[in-house]
Amino acid sequence: MKKVVVIGGGTGNFAVLSGLRNYHVDLSAIVSMADDGGSTGVLRDELGVLPPGDVRQCLVALSDSSRLMRSLMNYRFENGGLGGHSFGNLLLSALEKVTGSFEKAVEEAGRILSIKGKVIPVTTNPVRLKMVLSNQKILEGEKEVHLSEEIHKGYKSIFLEPFPDVNKRAIDEIMNADVIILGPGGLYTSLIPNLLVEGISKALRDTQAKKIYIANLINKRGQTPLFKVSDYLREIQRYIGKDIFDFLIVNEGKPPQELIKAYALEGDLVHNNLTGARIVSADLLSSGLKEIQKSDRLQRNLIRHDPQKLAQELMKIVNSL
Amino acid sequence: MKKVVVIGGGTGNFAVLSGLRNYHVDLSAIVSMADDGGSTGVLRDELGVLPPGDVRQCLVALSDSSRLMRSLMNYRFENGGLGGHSFGNLLLSALEKVTGSFEKAVEEAGRILSIKGKVIPVTTNPVRLKMVLSNQKILEGEKEVHLSEEIHKGYKSIFLEPFPDVNKRAIDEIMNADVIILGPGGLYTSLIPNLLVEGISKALRDTQAKKIYIANLINKRGQTPLFKVSDYLREIQRYIGKDIFDFLIVNEGKPPQELIKAYALEGDLVHNNLTGARIVSADLLSSGLKEIQKSDRLQRNLIRHDPQKLAQELMKIVNSL
Repeated sequence: MKKVVVIGGGTGNFAVLSGLRNYHVDLSAIVSMADDGGSTGVLRDELGVLPPGDVRQCLVALSDSSRLMRSLMNYRFENGGLGGHSFGNLLLSALEKVTGSFEKAVEEAGRILSIKGKVIPVTTNPVRLKMVLSNQKILEGEKEVHLSEEIHKGYKSIFLEPFPDVNKRAIDEIMNADVIILGPGGLYTSLIPNLLVEGISKALRDTQAKKIYIANLINKRGQTPLFKVSDYLREIQRYIGKDIFDFLIVNEGKPPQELIKAYALEGDLVHNNLTGARIVSADLLSSGLKEIQKSDRLQRNLIRHDPQKLAQELMKIVNSL
Repeated sequence: MKKVVVIGGGTGNFAVLSGLRNYHVDLSAIVSMADDGGSTGVLRDELGVLPPGDVRQCLVALSDSSRLMRSLMNYRFENGGLGGHSFGNLLLSALEKVTGSFEKAVEEAGRILSIKGKVIPVTTNPVRLKMVLSNQKILEGEKEVHLSEEIHKGYKSIFLEPFPDVNKRAIDEIMNADVIILGPGGLYTSLIPNLLVEGISKALRDTQAKKIYIANLINKRGQTPLFKVSDYLREIQRYIGKDIFDFLIVNEGKPPQELIKAYALEGDLVHNNLTGARIVSADLLSSGLKEIQKSDRLQRNLIRHDPQKLAQELMKIVNSL
């Protein structure tokens, strides 16, 4: 069974993992731990736990349990002191308190949800993402980075604070992988935060695994406007140190004009400007709304990757190895 | 396999169920639905759900899952908007929201916790317990009844509002039981609220099952001061309509003098003033604190029934049938 490692955090991971779950592969998800918005941010502040949100999404994506259990994990309380919290976040936070360890909590939640594969936090230190912009402004926390519309004007640095220890299991996964998948996902909020943990970039350079980059569908307004696939590669390369990718998966499907219009406020479509044997171009768009998850973020993204189409392209590569 | 039905709510049920779980019997717990204090009260008010607290305790008592899962269910968040909520209560409330039904929520939680037996809410209507005292004062809600120290001066009536429909499954359980166990538990807050649901008392009079009453260890200050076993029976008989009990299980163990002193503020020891073949008298006291549950209520009760001793006496009766 081929070992496939997916690196990211959030919605992008969800699409890749939930598509690949149906195939005969040994799946691992390495998850960024910089999230501090929404329910996750409140739990970090009030309970002092590690951020559960992105891990929850990966667990649900890999879960083999009933549809009900998966809905339960994404269920958000609406009122009172619980308002805004997703149940899965509370499960992970309570498990962290009861077991005394976030990693044990993730493991136990994985058992409750009968997950296929593993979910591995890239670090288990409590880190915050920080970004210093060219105009001297400092963005404190992933939430501020996520909301910023000034990043495209230039930034000086992006880093995690305090400087974290890497989770050694993440390094092992990368070194033992047959295939590593990076993306899709927020460039500054989901992908790069993984690369900022010491040891990850080196492992990505050193591993014998085939590396696949999946390009985003939409550029984020104020952050990566008019970025082409080459621009994403260039940014990622700054952190990994070289162009490691054996395959680049890009979308060639065209969303309906109304959707593009509706998205104008969020950002423009990512276009591919590269050619060559490593480019895998296919229609990867989700056609309907029928499978929208009950998570805020996913509900918003109507131009989305179709997990099945994505998995088909990925499995063609995996099976060719 | 003998069918044993336990009627009550709260801590008393917990002791009986967790003791009987280890024996080869078909167990059901019928649970009062009048709780409105603490975490349960906040969830009722803020989310409009049915009261999860007593059901949670029964589920944990019947759970065959790991110690960790049981600790998780009783884990209470300490800070912020979640402060005071036990995780199990949140699980039941989220499941009620996701499934649209409290009964389905209880069933699903039972599956997650691998329970042995069934937990059945006596009604699935949102009811409040009310009590009109002889001095005209009205106690609104189980919490006010629980805290009152005037009940011993006399009360005019106790009722549920709005008048609830009985859960037909509770009637079926009673009619098909081999053994029915009432108590131990708060007389006005756990036992009688079950008897106030139409149909329960009639079923208890009509069923062919052997009925066992387990006397409390401690009289509740301001509610049942100096009550003897006969006083409890008399009060219960007012609601059932006749003395139905084939067996009365009473404690003959003596708690250490320091504990009795420490309890002086809570209430006095219950003494047995009855004789006859139906009296089963045994040392039923828990000897240590080692198995104290992480639930507020249980932690307070240091003079408690030992689940194993209780189960041994109960099983002698069950096996003699």
